[in-house]
Amino acid sequence: MPVNLSAPDPQALHPIAGVTLGTAQAGIRKPGRKDLLVIRLDDGARAAAVFTQNRFCAAPVIVAREHLASTSAVRALVVNTGNANAGTGGPGLAAARATCDALAKLLECSPAQVLPFSTGVIMEPLPVDRVTAGLPQCLRNLGPNAWADAAEAIMTTDTVPKAASGRFRVGGADIGITGIAKGAGMIRPNMATMLGFVATDARVAGPLLQQAVREAAGRSFNCITVDGDTSTNDSFVLIASGRARMPEIADAKSAEYAAFRNAVIDISERLAQAIIRDGEGATKFITVRVEGGRDESECRQVAYAVAHSPLVKTAFFASDPNLGRILAAVGYAGVTDLDVGKVDLYLDDVLVAKGGGRHAGYEEADGQRVMKQSEITVRIVLARGDAGASVWTCDLSHDYVSINADYRS
Amino acid sequence: MPVNLSAPDPQALHPIAGVTLGTAQAGIRKPGRKDLLVIRLDDGARAAAVFTQNRFCAAPVIVAREHLASTSAVRALVVNTGNANAGTGGPGLAAARATCDALAKLLECSPAQVLPFSTGVIMEPLPVDRVTAGLPQCLRNLGPNAWADAAEAIMTTDTVPKAASGRFRVGGADIGITGIAKGAGMIRPNMATMLGFVATDARVAGPLLQQAVREAAGRSFNCITVDGDTSTNDSFVLIASGRARMPEIADAKSAEYAAFRNAVIDISERLAQAIIRDGEGATKFITVRVEGGRDESECRQVAYAVAHSPLVKTAFFASDPNLGRILAAVGYAGVTDLDVGKVDLYLDDVLVAKGGGRHAGYEEADGQRVMKQSEITVRIVLARGDAGASVWTCDLSHDYVSINADYRS
Repeated sequence: MPVNLSAPDPQALHPIAGVTLGTAQAGIRKPGRKDLLVIRLDDGARAAAVFTQNRFCAAPVIVAREHLASTSAVRALVVNTGNANAGTGGPGLAAARATCDALAKLLECSPAQVLPFSTGVIMEPLPVDRVTAGLPQCLRNLGPNAWADAAEAIMTTDTVPKAASGRFRVGGADIGITGIAKGAGMIRPNMATMLGFVATDARVAGPLLQQAVREAAGRSFNCITVDGDTSTNDSFVLIASGRARMPEIADAKSAEYAAFRNAVIDISERLAQAIIRDGEGATKFITVRVEGGRDESECRQVAYAVAHSPLVKTAFFASDPNLGRILAAVGYAGVTDLDVGKVDLYLDDVLVAKGGGRHAGYEEADGQRVMKQSEITVRIVLARGDAGASVWTCDLSHDYVSINADYRS
Repeated sequence: MPVNLSAPDPQALHPIAGVTLGTAQAGIRKPGRKDLLVIRLDDGARAAAVFTQNRFCAAPVIVAREHLASTSAVRALVVNTGNANAGTGGPGLAAARATCDALAKLLECSPAQVLPFSTGVIMEPLPVDRVTAGLPQCLRNLGPNAWADAAEAIMTTDTVPKAASGRFRVGGADIGITGIAKGAGMIRPNMATMLGFVATDARVAGPLLQQAVREAAGRSFNCITVDGDTSTNDSFVLIASGRARMPEIADAKSAEYAAFRNAVIDISERLAQAIIRDGEGATKFITVRVEGGRDESECRQVAYAVAHSPLVKTAFFASDPNLGRILAAVGYAGVTDLDVGKVDLYLDDVLVAKGGGRHAGYEEADGQRVMKQSEITVRIVLARGDAGASVWTCDLSHDYVSINADYRS
């Protein structure tokens, strides 16, 4: 059961001019479910992306990176679920290229104008024939209002599809932005998540599009963790179709870029938080906020230590205010000169530990009250600087073990 | 259920001349169980120790460090379970000192000659009155054959007590060595584990005793992980009573030191592996061996990434050869210039992945056969150097979640 998250209302997802989507049931891993998606971009669209930092990056990640480096005129994205095409060596690379070749032939463009994405089981051969056989069905279904279908077609262990949509104004023009994402386990993105696609009809210069995708990843997908496992296939793509009637955004210091970047961050945060709300086995949505650090990096380091601790996560699952476990995680986070005698710990509004020890006025009943909530903020004050960082995570439940013990069955 | 581990046979634990042990039921957290231990050292004994690197180290760790720095003539160790006396600030420090004061008074020595140790719940006040009230009972029970009792008195979530004993020869003298340890969760020791005590009747110079305790920790307790959570209370103490008829070992390059060190490492490894076999919820004992690295440090880094991955650990629990998860963990371990195209992966004798991809001859039935075993070796060959390292861990089961969700209830 996801935490305060329901399936998106298809009516609330704005179409983006210049972007159409089509899905198919290709039977890649199991029959009878949408498992293949094509996102078609009209002429004039630009795309920028960030990818996993995992050294074992998947074949489609390697190919998508190559293609983005060789062309600025991406015409299509193709996404399959059910198989990650990772840890598959030379045959995996050939399969990713064959997928691009097949779609390019159908769309009459060059293979380098197609970006491939895969998600699912690692180290199993991609059934590339089923992928290519499903492509014509995707193209027959192409339409501007298929964002909800698309969100469904990229799910793996997700229990609800994830999509978000918004509008913003740039110089009098009304711009739309819509995105989808998937992911529930193997979630500790490093530069991107597995998988996110956001499109807008804004006109944006290529370098600024790349800057925005990096900034948005840093403020959204790079701030979440379910299990600390960085996927081999993380990819986050930002598409600007350029169909809006507006001057191109080309100055990183302009108010227009700021409005655009904020809209991208907003949608990305909503998608990233949706991934945590639907984290494998999640029963609680937890914000770990670290303040008073010397720099953002050490705040994030401490926040991740807390967010990854199986002991902290099982305590949240049990609604047990066994909060010394949070102090222990702060202590081993690797900030070697941390003066623990200055550290304060809050659970929502409740001061739990002051100056490194249990606060004299702390009553377990207050901790218990907050622990029973489905949304909790852990706030850790290091008192050694002015920097801060937040990480979003979920608890560790029996269902996480069940889901991952039975994933392939 | 621990993995191939049964309670030690008290008859098989050699007494160590100059060392006596006594336990009590002090009712520290719950009544009706042994929860307090005194280890008494006769004149002439030396002790050396390593402690947790957690910045939130517990009050007894701070006091034990101070006492070891101020005297070489330790006369007693006092260990309570049921309360970690960590995250307890000034009152916690006072409680640890009061415990030493009380025992010193009974033993007619100075408080600095007493080392305190605590294990249990973090951030709850230590009921120091119950500790000091239990000390006379410990002293009445003092005896040389109480090692099994002592192992029992320091348990928390352990399901079986952990002890090991051996003999070795130094220059014609027959020397005994016996140790106990506890720990099942919050296990990723950094310089030591929570808690280990090893005693020998060898005569060893102080600096060499300290060297041996560090070397043994590095080869045993520092190579294990259950959940990646480094405890606030990890302590590993090596005691040499000096009662054996032998010249003092004082040369780090001598054959005598080598024999001594190997005996300490052997006992420490057996205790460390016993902790993993009794890891919270463990159903499998897993050795992660990384070879062909540039240095031991990067091998250990990769081994820990695999050993900490919840996805890898749940796959072991399910006996599911979903082995791409191991490659993913190797990829995100942080070896930034790793050429994954050279990485081989073995499961026991089965070659699973060769050159970064699924081995052509790999059959899932072979992986399945190994995954069903209760003892499994994962071997990862990086093919970039001659260094190697091993880490021991267990799987992640429903029982880990249950045990830690219900720990305080």
